[in-house]
Amino acid sequence: MAEEQFLAAAVGAAKSAGEVDLVTETDKACEDLIFNHLRMLYPDHKFIGEETSAALGSTDDLTYDPTWIVDPLDGTTNFVHGFPFVCVSIGLTIGKIPTVAVVYNPIMNELFTAVRGKGAFLNGSPIKTSPQNELVKALMVTEVGTKRDKSTLDDTTNRINKLLFKIRSIRMCGSLALNMCGVACGRLDLCYEIGFGGPWDVAAGALILKEAGGFVFDPSGDEFDLMAQRMAGSNGHLKDQFIKALGDAS
Amino acid sequence: MAEEQFLAAAVGAAKSAGEVDLVTETDKACEDLIFNHLRMLYPDHKFIGEETSAALGSTDDLTYDPTWIVDPLDGTTNFVHGFPFVCVSIGLTIGKIPTVAVVYNPIMNELFTAVRGKGAFLNGSPIKTSPQNELVKALMVTEVGTKRDKSTLDDTTNRINKLLFKIRSIRMCGSLALNMCGVACGRLDLCYEIGFGGPWDVAAGALILKEAGGFVFDPSGDEFDLMAQRMAGSNGHLKDQFIKALGDAS
Repeated sequence: MAEEQFLAAAVGAAKSAGEVDLVTETDKACEDLIFNHLRMLYPDHKFIGEETSAALGSTDDLTYDPTWIVDPLDGTTNFVHGFPFVCVSIGLTIGKIPTVAVVYNPIMNELFTAVRGKGAFLNGSPIKTSPQNELVKALMVTEVGTKRDKSTLDDTTNRINKLLFKIRSIRMCGSLALNMCGVACGRLDLCYEIGFGGPWDVAAGALILKEAGGFVFDPSGDEFDLMAQRMAGSNGHLKDQFIKALGDAS
Repeated sequence: MAEEQFLAAAVGAAKSAGEVDLVTETDKACEDLIFNHLRMLYPDHKFIGEETSAALGSTDDLTYDPTWIVDPLDGTTNFVHGFPFVCVSIGLTIGKIPTVAVVYNPIMNELFTAVRGKGAFLNGSPIKTSPQNELVKALMVTEVGTKRDKSTLDDTTNRINKLLFKIRSIRMCGSLALNMCGVACGRLDLCYEIGFGGPWDVAAGALILKEAGGFVFDPSGDEFDLMAQRMAGSNGHLKDQFIKALGDAS
């Protein structure tokens, strides 16, 4: 079926990008490689990438056509430093709905995949979110983001301060796509980030997390908007407790 | 020479602990295994471990005898969650001076080793700290710690807030020993933590970081005290800038 072919195409594109000598190639070169790979197979599809697209302004800019949404290198700061949390993120929306997702960490050799309605996988084995149902025992991952104006930073650290009274601990690993996959495979229980780069950071991770039995939503508790640069995620048990904690911390 | 034999003994102990079925064994069982391994070889040496020793009160409690300082499982929260930053940490002091160090992450199969005056190694290859000499481009790792009283948490998040205006970004990975090794091998540029568990968290990492060309010091800028539960580390260039930034953030 088409979706399985799309998945195979995305895995091929992600792995070929992972084989590029990342020390000498740029994000842009990786994105070209991925887009070329997919365009050859699907010349009529649309493409959105961090390097070649300006940030989209609203959901109106995402069409109902099959659209590949690509971050050729999520975790650029990590990559520059040699810190192992980097990945290629490739998502496909059809009718604006995330349908195929691949997140590939070439350094740790971890390939996360999902097709809508078919579950999520890590290196071919099914994954599911953690069974944790107590917020106080939950491990949360987030990032401080790149905006360093005083207002944003104060909001960010105040939120972290308040959340730390309610959860077990916090991790910051520098890749939003891998953060979502970490919740998907049960290594982490909760994730959120506000003000990230664009839909390429979350298009694949959101589907993988949902297909693993988790929830993806706006930090306010509203429905998740792929274009809103606001994301929260949880395992299958902590969504309501997390929304309340995020609200109390705002 | 004796130090190389000590190193080989520590590697053997760390690897045998890494092979234990960590899902069913406890920290205590791991520590027993490591201590038994080393005691058989060195019956006259002293041993300090997280599980079997109360936290030492001062440097007076560390003697001049050869003393193995062991954390059988650094990153316990990560371990419980399946998050891959966990390690065995084994340090040997002779005359109170860190002399042999092993930090082993069995999940990522990374073995960091050092002997005083002989350099630091990752899986047998020499490592050195990053060449980064601009604080604003530095990647810093820290932890929020386990104390959740309001005063400690406010201090912690206020410090992070102020540091974020001066550095590139922050990581929190949940293992102090691996944080120090991350700076040692150049994946990270700076690390600090105040109020951690005890000397077992830093005895090995401090030597590995120093032998890789980095600095280990008290966050105030004073000399590092293995027993003080206060640690900061940097690559070979950023020590003075980091001490000033930590001072300004306190």
